[in-house]
Amino acid sequence: MKTQIPVLILIDGVPGAGRGKVINLLNEWMDSRHLENHTFWNPSDETMERPEYWRYWMALPERGKIALFFGGWYSQAVQKAIGGKAKGMKFESALADAVKLEQMLAADGMLIIKLFLYLPKDKYLKRIKKTGVDPLSCDEDISESDYDNLLKYYGKAIRMTDTSMAHWYIINSASEKQRNITVLELLINNLNNALNTRNNNVEHASSLPITNPLPMHVLDKVDLSVTIKPKEYTDMLKYYQEKLNGLTLKAFSKGISTVVLFEGWDAAGKGGSIRRLSSAIDSRIRKIIPIGAPTDEEKAHHYLWRFWRYIPRAGYITIYDRSWYGRVLVERVEKFATSAEWSRAYEEINTFESQLVASGTLLIKFWLQISPDEQLKRFQEREELKWKNYKITPDDWRNREKAPAYNDAIDDMMVRTSTDIAPWTIIPANDKHYARVEVLKTVYEKLKKRL
Amino acid sequence: MKTQIPVLILIDGVPGAGRGKVINLLNEWMDSRHLENHTFWNPSDETMERPEYWRYWMALPERGKIALFFGGWYSQAVQKAIGGKAKGMKFESALADAVKLEQMLAADGMLIIKLFLYLPKDKYLKRIKKTGVDPLSCDEDISESDYDNLLKYYGKAIRMTDTSMAHWYIINSASEKQRNITVLELLINNLNNALNTRNNNVEHASSLPITNPLPMHVLDKVDLSVTIKPKEYTDMLKYYQEKLNGLTLKAFSKGISTVVLFEGWDAAGKGGSIRRLSSAIDSRIRKIIPIGAPTDEEKAHHYLWRFWRYIPRAGYITIYDRSWYGRVLVERVEKFATSAEWSRAYEEINTFESQLVASGTLLIKFWLQISPDEQLKRFQEREELKWKNYKITPDDWRNREKAPAYNDAIDDMMVRTSTDIAPWTIIPANDKHYARVEVLKTVYEKLKKRL
Repeated sequence: MKTQIPVLILIDGVPGAGRGKVINLLNEWMDSRHLENHTFWNPSDETMERPEYWRYWMALPERGKIALFFGGWYSQAVQKAIGGKAKGMKFESALADAVKLEQMLAADGMLIIKLFLYLPKDKYLKRIKKTGVDPLSCDEDISESDYDNLLKYYGKAIRMTDTSMAHWYIINSASEKQRNITVLELLINNLNNALNTRNNNVEHASSLPITNPLPMHVLDKVDLSVTIKPKEYTDMLKYYQEKLNGLTLKAFSKGISTVVLFEGWDAAGKGGSIRRLSSAIDSRIRKIIPIGAPTDEEKAHHYLWRFWRYIPRAGYITIYDRSWYGRVLVERVEKFATSAEWSRAYEEINTFESQLVASGTLLIKFWLQISPDEQLKRFQEREELKWKNYKITPDDWRNREKAPAYNDAIDDMMVRTSTDIAPWTIIPANDKHYARVEVLKTVYEKLKKRL
Repeated sequence: MKTQIPVLILIDGVPGAGRGKVINLLNEWMDSRHLENHTFWNPSDETMERPEYWRYWMALPERGKIALFFGGWYSQAVQKAIGGKAKGMKFESALADAVKLEQMLAADGMLIIKLFLYLPKDKYLKRIKKTGVDPLSCDEDISESDYDNLLKYYGKAIRMTDTSMAHWYIINSASEKQRNITVLELLINNLNNALNTRNNNVEHASSLPITNPLPMHVLDKVDLSVTIKPKEYTDMLKYYQEKLNGLTLKAFSKGISTVVLFEGWDAAGKGGSIRRLSSAIDSRIRKIIPIGAPTDEEKAHHYLWRFWRYIPRAGYITIYDRSWYGRVLVERVEKFATSAEWSRAYEEINTFESQLVASGTLLIKFWLQISPDEQLKRFQEREELKWKNYKITPDDWRNREKAPAYNDAIDDMMVRTSTDIAPWTIIPANDKHYARVEVLKTVYEKLKKRL
């Protein structure tokens, strides 16, 4: 029986990871009558004079054929972003275009497989040094130092466009043999799956599972060694508290609302920072909402309902001690939410936040970051000091053991919800005093800019 | 067994159609302990000072409860559009927000039923005259003459937001008794369905069927009596052809591309108009693409592929004689495309056109409109005159019999694809000469504006 599935294999990756070699290998293994190769480097006049997507449409496989794309819409978008031509919102909208196209094609029956050949930085540097950049590759202008940039943008692209219609697969290409075997196994599995699914008329799954995330570890790059001297701390605290007091009253009189939310590891110092922040603001115009387990009434609604409840009216300030991000952090890790639920939450959260911002509300999102060692120290202190004892529970220790799962969740959260209109502010919090001042300073500066 | 479905019933409609009465009726029939009523007229300070959607979120039903909304996000959007505050793109983006919210809620398990109580214009005018506007309704500022506007915006809203997750039901409310019975039957069916579906864990359907469209008949409003005198025709034709010739050469030298597409009833005069248009343009820079049955190669690709093929390079002009709109016209009516396929085509077409326009291409979409009588006259002429005989086939007669189905399809197409960036130009074509001059004039003016 002929199923006539068109298959698109997109091959992206780090230069030197062997994209060309993989394509050559696939050409060797597969029947060339049903296989087409397309590279998008060195575009002709014909191509440059048409809308960008024209070149891809013209290269799409017919039913029953397989097309290998060396690069494509992602490499184009990433290169533009690195070149500074389309960063931020423009990069996000290029990714949204890619998802739209893939949805269109998948709905029409196309099997889309997206490969990212990954090399750790040290291997990359070694390989580039040894072989030089391939003269046939489209990456002539990607220098050593661009590795980080490349990973940053591909990381975002992969996380935002990994859909059930068109999965990304990250392939560690440090070993050539292992890389080839992984690619082949993966293609065989995907093709078999597609054939089974089509023949049995099974529908596409509709959830959006996240597979094999690229090791981003956004938070690993935070410098936690920053500190502040006691005298400076007292002065700065007083300075920003006074400034902020005046500014919040001005915002009140102008009817400009503010939402501040705090997330961070257990014992990162959220409570202390919130106390210093809130004591700077007249208590008549601010409200602190601690987010714990939901009430019965809250459980009976959509999870965003409990946060909508406390959205401030004009001029007021709501401080959320933990927030809607619980959906993609604790609820994900503890499996309180199904994978379909937390997967769609990123988009729901982005929609929610964009409505807030569009209505004129100032939204500030803090992540308080501490090192595992610092956390351990604080936990032990809490157990030893009687007056801090109430702050530590067996749950805290259990959560600590789940740090790897939390790290994945935090990574996804940062990448998928750091939008241009509502970016995260990451606060290094190993030094509590430093963190408190940074929080005050950030709120002050953002509010000042808004007024 | 308790299924605990939250149910949201949105009641919109023409003033005087009995929205209040339906709500009172439902309150009488249902257990008031599980029922909540919400109107959104006369909002408090509290409400006005928060993002618009706050008021709706606060009114959403808990699991197991039913909420009746008298108006809501649609009536808000329509009123803003009528008041001139949010027309065009803003209105479309308000509708997109509504869909996002409904998707979120439906994914969370909410049953959403949207009712539009419809009154034909004559009944509306009679009822308003007799009773005056209800002092409790939120429509104090809707005058008689606003009926057309109301229908226009609700028509668009209903067509763009009728999803499988949240259907619209149009209820003819000319007879009170009939209206009440329809509403009750509809609610019973929907609730029964929801209970069955949830208990059997059946997934939501993913296609977007269009139900009970509001009688819009966009094309009925076109004045087909317009004509042009022979002398004027000859003069104007020559004038615009010469002007256009110069302009297209200028566009060529500037690298600005143009896409012109023609749709319309059989025998509406597309061919004649295209000949007059194309003869104004240097044949080296324009191409005419007649769209008939797809070739084997075209069939083997996504349906948009055959149109992407001929997208002009910089400075060139492509004229499509029939176009991608075949997907939602002939393919829909003749059932060449499944309902899932043509339903998703509107969005695919809008995406495609927005990519064209974003890349700098000028896109002009013509609909040539003739009356059924004029069509009949032309068909008969074609059968009688030997040299026109080749133009008429049994298919034409068959299509003519399907006019009602085509009318629905055209209505949907006009409403769903008349976007701000790519509006339709409707040409009254009962007088062929008039139509030809109008086409030339439109292309000339749009191109002039673009240069």
